[in-house]
Amino acid sequence: MKDVTKENLEGIGCDEEQEKTNSRPLQTDWSSLNTMGLPGVVDASYRDPPSDQKLRLRSNCPLVETSNSIWNFQENEWRLTFVDGEETSLLYSKHEKIALQDFDGEVRPAIDVEQFLDQDCVLLLDEDVAVSQNYSSPAELVDLLLGRMGLSATVAEEAKTILFTNDSVPTLRRTIQAIYSSKDKSKGEFEYDESWVCTVADVPSLMKRHTAIIRLKQPTNMGDTCHDVQLFVLILCPVKEKSTKNGLETGRTFATLLADANIRRQLLEVTTDKEFKRLMLNRTQELIDEQRQSRAAVPIKLDSDVQSKTKSVETKKNIWKFGQFGQGIREDLCRRLPHYISDYVDGVVGQKTPQKVLSTTFFLYFACLLPAIAFGVLNDHNTHGKIGVKKVIMGQTIGGLFFAIFGGQPLLILLTTAPLALYIKVISSICDDFQLDFFAMYGCVGLWCAFFLLIFSLFNVSRLMHWCTRSTEEIFGLFISVAFCVDACRDTAKNFQKNFYSSQCQGENAITNITNSLSSSLTFYSWNDTRANDSAEAIADPNEEPMGVECNQASSVLFLLLMLGTVWLGVSIFNFKKTPFLSAGKREILADYALPIAVVTMSFVGSFFFREVKAEPFRYDDSENVFTVTPLERLPGLAIAGAMGLGFALSLLILMDQNISSAMVNTPLNNLKKGPAYHWDLFVMAILTAALSAVGLPWMHALVPHSPLHARALADVEERVHQGHVYQIIVRVRETRLTVLFSHILIGLSIMLLPYPLAYIPPAVLNGLFLYVAVTGLGGNQMFERISLFFTEQSAYPPNHYIRRVPQRKIHQFTGCQLAQLMLMCLFGFVPWPYMKMIFPVILLSLLPIRHLIVPRVVEDRFLKALDSSEH
Amino acid sequence: MKDVTKENLEGIGCDEEQEKTNSRPLQTDWSSLNTMGLPGVVDASYRDPPSDQKLRLRSNCPLVETSNSIWNFQENEWRLTFVDGEETSLLYSKHEKIALQDFDGEVRPAIDVEQFLDQDCVLLLDEDVAVSQNYSSPAELVDLLLGRMGLSATVAEEAKTILFTNDSVPTLRRTIQAIYSSKDKSKGEFEYDESWVCTVADVPSLMKRHTAIIRLKQPTNMGDTCHDVQLFVLILCPVKEKSTKNGLETGRTFATLLADANIRRQLLEVTTDKEFKRLMLNRTQELIDEQRQSRAAVPIKLDSDVQSKTKSVETKKNIWKFGQFGQGIREDLCRRLPHYISDYVDGVVGQKTPQKVLSTTFFLYFACLLPAIAFGVLNDHNTHGKIGVKKVIMGQTIGGLFFAIFGGQPLLILLTTAPLALYIKVISSICDDFQLDFFAMYGCVGLWCAFFLLIFSLFNVSRLMHWCTRSTEEIFGLFISVAFCVDACRDTAKNFQKNFYSSQCQGENAITNITNSLSSSLTFYSWNDTRANDSAEAIADPNEEPMGVECNQASSVLFLLLMLGTVWLGVSIFNFKKTPFLSAGKREILADYALPIAVVTMSFVGSFFFREVKAEPFRYDDSENVFTVTPLERLPGLAIAGAMGLGFALSLLILMDQNISSAMVNTPLNNLKKGPAYHWDLFVMAILTAALSAVGLPWMHALVPHSPLHARALADVEERVHQGHVYQIIVRVRETRLTVLFSHILIGLSIMLLPYPLAYIPPAVLNGLFLYVAVTGLGGNQMFERISLFFTEQSAYPPNHYIRRVPQRKIHQFTGCQLAQLMLMCLFGFVPWPYMKMIFPVILLSLLPIRHLIVPRVVEDRFLKALDSSEH
Repeated sequence: MKDVTKENLEGIGCDEEQEKTNSRPLQTDWSSLNTMGLPGVVDASYRDPPSDQKLRLRSNCPLVETSNSIWNFQENEWRLTFVDGEETSLLYSKHEKIALQDFDGEVRPAIDVEQFLDQDCVLLLDEDVAVSQNYSSPAELVDLLLGRMGLSATVAEEAKTILFTNDSVPTLRRTIQAIYSSKDKSKGEFEYDESWVCTVADVPSLMKRHTAIIRLKQPTNMGDTCHDVQLFVLILCPVKEKSTKNGLETGRTFATLLADANIRRQLLEVTTDKEFKRLMLNRTQELIDEQRQSRAAVPIKLDSDVQSKTKSVETKKNIWKFGQFGQGIREDLCRRLPHYISDYVDGVVGQKTPQKVLSTTFFLYFACLLPAIAFGVLNDHNTHGKIGVKKVIMGQTIGGLFFAIFGGQPLLILLTTAPLALYIKVISSICDDFQLDFFAMYGCVGLWCAFFLLIFSLFNVSRLMHWCTRSTEEIFGLFISVAFCVDACRDTAKNFQKNFYSSQCQGENAITNITNSLSSSLTFYSWNDTRANDSAEAIADPNEEPMGVECNQASSVLFLLLMLGTVWLGVSIFNFKKTPFLSAGKREILADYALPIAVVTMSFVGSFFFREVKAEPFRYDDSENVFTVTPLERLPGLAIAGAMGLGFALSLLILMDQNISSAMVNTPLNNLKKGPAYHWDLFVMAILTAALSAVGLPWMHALVPHSPLHARALADVEERVHQGHVYQIIVRVRETRLTVLFSHILIGLSIMLLPYPLAYIPPAVLNGLFLYVAVTGLGGNQMFERISLFFTEQSAYPPNHYIRRVPQRKIHQFTGCQLAQLMLMCLFGFVPWPYMKMIFPVILLSLLPIRHLIVPRVVEDRFLKALDSSEH
Repeated sequence: MKDVTKENLEGIGCDEEQEKTNSRPLQTDWSSLNTMGLPGVVDASYRDPPSDQKLRLRSNCPLVETSNSIWNFQENEWRLTFVDGEETSLLYSKHEKIALQDFDGEVRPAIDVEQFLDQDCVLLLDEDVAVSQNYSSPAELVDLLLGRMGLSATVAEEAKTILFTNDSVPTLRRTIQAIYSSKDKSKGEFEYDESWVCTVADVPSLMKRHTAIIRLKQPTNMGDTCHDVQLFVLILCPVKEKSTKNGLETGRTFATLLADANIRRQLLEVTTDKEFKRLMLNRTQELIDEQRQSRAAVPIKLDSDVQSKTKSVETKKNIWKFGQFGQGIREDLCRRLPHYISDYVDGVVGQKTPQKVLSTTFFLYFACLLPAIAFGVLNDHNTHGKIGVKKVIMGQTIGGLFFAIFGGQPLLILLTTAPLALYIKVISSICDDFQLDFFAMYGCVGLWCAFFLLIFSLFNVSRLMHWCTRSTEEIFGLFISVAFCVDACRDTAKNFQKNFYSSQCQGENAITNITNSLSSSLTFYSWNDTRANDSAEAIADPNEEPMGVECNQASSVLFLLLMLGTVWLGVSIFNFKKTPFLSAGKREILADYALPIAVVTMSFVGSFFFREVKAEPFRYDDSENVFTVTPLERLPGLAIAGAMGLGFALSLLILMDQNISSAMVNTPLNNLKKGPAYHWDLFVMAILTAALSAVGLPWMHALVPHSPLHARALADVEERVHQGHVYQIIVRVRETRLTVLFSHILIGLSIMLLPYPLAYIPPAVLNGLFLYVAVTGLGGNQMFERISLFFTEQSAYPPNHYIRRVPQRKIHQFTGCQLAQLMLMCLFGFVPWPYMKMIFPVILLSLLPIRHLIVPRVVEDRFLKALDSSEH
């Protein structure tokens, strides 16, 4: 209607008596209509409202076609004004339903209310004699409250510009109101609770939070959806505030309090601020109690971590009943066998599945082959060539294929590991000390181990994992990452020791100094003598030891360069999906191939660009026998008994590592559908260990972080943004056996690539791969997240479940406990005495009682539930 | 009122006749009130509304105190339901004023409307015979329109869940409406235009944009603020859409169209879709015209880049009048002299100023001293030691202090540079060829150059810079970054050539091979012979050439490691302020000291951890004379004439480099307050050049990116987030002379640190610094941003001014033009023949005519205004 101003109409003879110069009231006199939610109660008069009549009336008039609006460009935006000075602007409105505050579960709401009560910010206008004025607009109320808060003029002014949409449009920018909706949701009927409104603002220059409530004398019309406001809540927050303390969260707390009509009625009745505050406090306590009772009545998921993890029907009471012989295996088979066909089919069908399977196959190929080579080199050194690279690769192939076909949880990745290499080393040195046959002793230990594993699996010892919570898994995960880093550092140090600080280098340096001083004096008479010697002879001079400890500083520096280069390149490509470059699809493919690309690129750099630097390829004996049947008969009886001890320790290690890896794969966050198979997997491991031991191949067990990374590589991940923080949620994991199968076939074929081109992969790149795995394996590790919170500023704390539910001090205390446990593990894990390292499985096992007996004395049980929940 | 249900009241004997079971209509019968904006027209009846009466009535009843609401925790959130099945939830509303669409300036709106017209999505319900139903709620309209759009069922369902707030609260989630506000803004009166509403949604699985408009038979009540809707616009956009094409932007376009009542009236009158569409198209064209006329009427800032840059009053016509002798210098002095005291004071007073001045001093110290050393080494090599490290540092000190005290724009940083080193090299080789005295020739060229600079400054040649636009500055900036990278690569290659691929290494390798094969056969008879020789003699064997070209592969690899380490560490610390760690203040301090930290750390790593690796410190002759008075009298006449040519080329180089650097410092984005001083600066440079030439110190000129980085280091930066993209805006720059003064005093004192500890800084770190400066110097370079757009996915394009105003193809064409110019510069800049490089200043000068004569033939002038504007 803005186009037809009075002047215009007069000018063309269309004057309308009933139109006032101020056209605004026209709209209000027929706005007495239902809100949209009530189609049933439609006012009959509204189908022909006055303005509609006018519109039709006007359209019959010969109107001037020229526009009487004026565009003008001010302050970097267009303004559209009319001849009468009115301005049109656009208002963009957004309505979100927000959840009611969780007073019982979260820690902030109660504190928020208490802090509010400490402030003197309740205004009962009907009681306050000093304020006799009638307040009818939010602007007036806000002015009044800002005055009471004692803010400086500039801050108050800033708060006002933020509270209201615009100078010319003084609506409240952000409000929270209650909505009533009928239980029959299909009707979609709803209604605003117009009796109160809460408005929030985040103000940059504010220093602390302010909350104020005003009670009006009588219901006041404050604009749309606020037609009879009696309670007005104003919340101002600093911008740099913890996200659980920001405007919206605080608003949610007070809105939840006021959402109940009972409390509102009582609040309207009280006569003094004190009563008002007391009521608020009581209501808060009531709410906590009500919610707690409600939560207790219904089985809430919070308590069900353990159950949901194993998806078994056992209750906590009977988990100590290990006795039901073979029951675990039976249950596992019942669970997994029906999925056996789909374990293959799922690797073929589905959107993006072939692509993911391919990239995961290559990931696994490099992630398994390279450690196999690395540990092969290590074992070769420890056993004086008895177990070499070739054997390790063969063992990897056999073990991987065997487990891929018969294993219960095909997402697990088996590898030989550093602790296993340690056992092999200990056995080797025992054999040296007591003049025993290495393979006989090795086989004997392995068979004992297999025997114990069999016992464990048949007597359902894996039920111990009921006590293994997320916290233990995370400590273990972090320990493994640390261990990989320590391994890489140790290898680097070893290389530097050998090539950089070799006696030859020291000597050369010293000698060069002498040379410099001597050469001038010596040259003149020694020149001809030395010249006379054959040059080949001079070089073959034994002092130079060309084949022994050579001074090859370049090799060490290159080692460092390649190692750091590999991890940097890998991690950069892995994180490339966070950039806006290329398309989403291409970024994902690139990230999937991060490891292979990094390894191949840096191997090329190392072996081609720096081919001049003398690098040492790994020791490889082509004549080596791959299978060595264990000559058990050569072992004396005492050795067999000793082997039993070693075998038991070894079986404990495999039990723990296998089960923790399995638990980390089966975490509810991975959203797996086919269920775990702890007992059956252990049974398969027993058979595999026996077989490997019998032919002298290295042992293996499921590994962290390879197994969780495998699950992640096969996953479809969705990013969800919540309050500015990005969360990754695994939607679906392709639970297939094909990736392990394919990659291990490739690994088996790789034996033909020995020694070249596999030897072109420099050892530095192997170590870079360890670091890469250590870094990427930390993704989703909440313990690591919480450690980084120590250094993070408060306002950047993510508003996740534990930040909401647990006081900050308790969070840090819990992280501290975990760090202490990690330290304990590191102490026993990296101690330089091999025999002390062997009790490591026991330490690992002791984490369970520590978590359940000691930690609860520091952090209360209800907080532990939030911190140590595997649901988030 | 929810607390008192009928059952409850009956139970306690408080039955109220007038209360209906469904309590909802209670609210509607007195909601016939004004909207907030109309305090003047208050309905008298409302002061005592019925519900208020009831409330009072009730409060007299002995109410049960127990709550009849039920809390229950479902789907991870609390639900509050009442006994009658109604549910309470919280609605969070946000109202933002958005700007009207710029139809004239931006390219998308017209295209958006055209694309809309191509779709068959106008529904005139009064004409459509098939649809006889009355539509009265948004849900029904949306269903109807979604059906017409031909979306698949799943997408339509998804769109619906996104369009509406919630199942139980079916309000439109995001709407755009017009608001009328009176011209007297203090009153704060406003009114919704309730006759139309536009709703938008970004739907993830949608493939293309859909826009639909529906015209209703008669004004329909659609809930709050939409009481008489006749036009309903529905916009669906894919989520992964360019930000200028997203839901809100498209909505803004259509809302701007409908904001004018004229067009709405016409749209309501038309009878067919075609007419409707034709009207929309006409209106779009009209809007473009109206806005264009309005913009033309008022002097818009877009045209004023050049004027605002130099802040001079000259119009374009008289910029070719170079003749007004000394006018430029006069104006510069008038502008800068009043600020002279404040140039010092501003470096002391103000929040965070001392801290910024300190960090900037250290930044400048390293950023100037290290290149001085690097170019000193280069000049030393080129002039056979005539101009060495010591002279360069002394020149740097004198030049820096002189300019800091007398210069017009104290933010400029003077340095000797690679092109200047080239001139010195050419002079040196000319002197060698013609047997001239180097210092005489050098002084003569320098004095000629100073003479020309004096002429330039007196005849206001710097007014040429009127033609130097942002585009030229950016090409130059990018070229300098490329040049730094090329320098670093060249140094690396040189090092590898010398140490890694030295003949000695080749020989050694070859010999080692021979040794391996020979040693076995030779050893047995040569053993004793060689053993007999004195070991010292064997080492002094001239074949090994210990002092000459040595095989030092480790040094080369270490060079690479340290160089990459320096740039990585520096850039990581520089970007640390983007992390959430530590506090904002500490992060900023850390970022300020990024360069010093990186240089010191990597120097320590290089010189301490790798002290075993034989590195070559730079050549330093302690006996070198710092000042060599130019023996001009030794020069023949012909040489003086030749020197004039060289001097002129050199003066052109200094003119261009100095002025472009100055223009980049004085960019409006830096928000400098004290104004530029192009002419006076050139005058000072003339004097400085003469002085330096007279005593045989190296020349200098203002440098990119040091000068802009200096301004940035002294700035207070504010981050602004707009549509998810973060923009950095410089609020204030401390325009002080103190930083350059302090840092150059330190540099002067550093002469005492020669050769040690300065020689502990490895050359690799110097090159790392070059790379660091090259990388950080690219910040804010729009050309670089636009190059990266080539690889960026559409949806991540920032919605900045040029993306809005220029079609994408044109943006890329413009970037292509710039790349071509950059290539031209690289061609002449990096050509291996020094004499061809000398015409580089002419090429640099030619960029101005290219930009103003050739580029406009590719990209239209109006787009160039947006792309090449220095305002954004």
